[in-house]
Amino acid sequence: MFIAVDAMGGDNAPGVVVQGALQASMDTGINIVLVGDSKVISAGLNGQKNSDKIRIHHCDEAVMMDESPLKALRSKRDSSIMTAFELLKKGEVDAVVSAGNSGATMAAGILTLGKIEGVDRPAIACTVPGEKGQVILIDVGGNVDCRPVHLLQFGVMADAFASSCLGIVRPRVGLLSIGREAGKGNEQVRLAYNLLQESGVNFIGNVEGGDILSGDAQIVVCDGFIGNVVLKLSEGMAEGFNTKFKKELIRSIIGRAAAFIGRGFLKKFEKTLDYAEWGGAPILGIKGVGIVCHGRSSARAIRNAILMAVDFVNNRVQEKLSIQMAQFNA
Amino acid sequence: MFIAVDAMGGDNAPGVVVQGALQASMDTGINIVLVGDSKVISAGLNGQKNSDKIRIHHCDEAVMMDESPLKALRSKRDSSIMTAFELLKKGEVDAVVSAGNSGATMAAGILTLGKIEGVDRPAIACTVPGEKGQVILIDVGGNVDCRPVHLLQFGVMADAFASSCLGIVRPRVGLLSIGREAGKGNEQVRLAYNLLQESGVNFIGNVEGGDILSGDAQIVVCDGFIGNVVLKLSEGMAEGFNTKFKKELIRSIIGRAAAFIGRGFLKKFEKTLDYAEWGGAPILGIKGVGIVCHGRSSARAIRNAILMAVDFVNNRVQEKLSIQMAQFNA
Repeated sequence: MFIAVDAMGGDNAPGVVVQGALQASMDTGINIVLVGDSKVISAGLNGQKNSDKIRIHHCDEAVMMDESPLKALRSKRDSSIMTAFELLKKGEVDAVVSAGNSGATMAAGILTLGKIEGVDRPAIACTVPGEKGQVILIDVGGNVDCRPVHLLQFGVMADAFASSCLGIVRPRVGLLSIGREAGKGNEQVRLAYNLLQESGVNFIGNVEGGDILSGDAQIVVCDGFIGNVVLKLSEGMAEGFNTKFKKELIRSIIGRAAAFIGRGFLKKFEKTLDYAEWGGAPILGIKGVGIVCHGRSSARAIRNAILMAVDFVNNRVQEKLSIQMAQFNA
Repeated sequence: MFIAVDAMGGDNAPGVVVQGALQASMDTGINIVLVGDSKVISAGLNGQKNSDKIRIHHCDEAVMMDESPLKALRSKRDSSIMTAFELLKKGEVDAVVSAGNSGATMAAGILTLGKIEGVDRPAIACTVPGEKGQVILIDVGGNVDCRPVHLLQFGVMADAFASSCLGIVRPRVGLLSIGREAGKGNEQVRLAYNLLQESGVNFIGNVEGGDILSGDAQIVVCDGFIGNVVLKLSEGMAEGFNTKFKKELIRSIIGRAAAFIGRGFLKKFEKTLDYAEWGGAPILGIKGVGIVCHGRSSARAIRNAILMAVDFVNNRVQEKLSIQMAQFNA
């Protein structure tokens, strides 16, 4: 298997990206194609390319983190993310992983590979740590102004992903709203409620903001506006807790003693709340495997995202997703 | 001054509500009218009504926490929350405080007192603890499917509140979106951006989910759907953090020692993150002072909410808000 990794994507690219790719290859023996400026990548590899499992595919350009996705893709035809998806289209690789601009990654995937039949809008499904296990939040890919049918499709796609890739049988699907009862929420959500109820997925009804991380729903469906706010808020809060907690601890002598004694634990705890540590989030609904990672991903997160891509390919998730969408639309 | 307190509203009514009212009266010497079932309230007072500052106004019914606001108000004309606002309308009290069903409280306020000229939709402004000081989130009152002009009005009302009640000169107003640049977000937000920019408030542009609690924006404007999700998610995370943290600490011997040494601190920390401890949130845009509290409010939070109501009356916030809306619409 060959995985194309966008070596130019991410806040700490290519350094940590290359390190993560090396780790993934060492741990699993898969082949990696590092896509980007070969000079920069070679410097990042720093002589560690000791295996024929790692290959560099050169290209000149890269999309920056803060660029407008569509504009950037139009003006930079030879960007690392477009090149990576083109390798996938040509069959030279089996999946693409990028920690770069996630809007541009999703757009490049759609432009290059196209959408799965029956999917109006591909979406990004992010897995976050919940109280009772993993929770899939979909969409976090910026699909704003969604129609109810889009929310329905997000639910169906995440269902296929969870069952075929994460091994969750009949995942519990919830719809994000402002009250648990049917009929609560805005118009979009009230209509999506009815559609999800008739969809055949294991729909448990509305979930509220406070329920997202409980894990009662294993899939939480929302539009990409609110998904983005939820993801960034929870990330910001997790960081804020740590900062505030440490600051408060350091204030008192007793606190300082507690912090000193518990420092190993605090570090571990910090990691469980850090989404940048959690690996990749798949783009669901494109004709091929594309995984986006947090811009701040560590090498370990990049490694985990590559392993997720491998899982996706091995479990033929795309195929199952296509079949499920076809059955669903029939 | 007389403050009507909905003695039947809240998860722990009338017990903690009555306790909070007693505290507020003792601390400030204001008069309290406890509205609700006199038998139940008397039991809650448990002989502590040792002052002529506390009066009971009997009524038979109460709106339950999970009832549909409008239905409940229609079928229960004699509910404590309607009665409290009617006392305000008649001039017998100066403000209403309730920890009951916040949708019903807002609806009762609108039905009884009416809306301030120029306000299409009254909204609830909740103050949350930010890194750089208090942050006002508006709307958290369930105004779903807002038009851009509603978001604009939320910003203008919160501006009047912050400057006249919290003493914040020219508060920094941000608009919740999924990217900081102008043009990011859904259609509603993109249009509201332009309106806020021309409104004369100190508009600092879009803020993202991760920025809400930073305090860069002292007022964060959003519709009531997303405001509700944000509030409940952050509340749930604060709780989850504590639970998870304690569970993790207890796992290891070192953690247990740290928890034991720092137990006083942990308790304090828990409180700073608990919105139920934070007092009241004003309903802005109705013709009178109405303050809602968290259903789980402690006696101290009820006391704080009553003090906020007193501040509102003393600072003539309603009058200033009306003037600001009139100037704004002129």
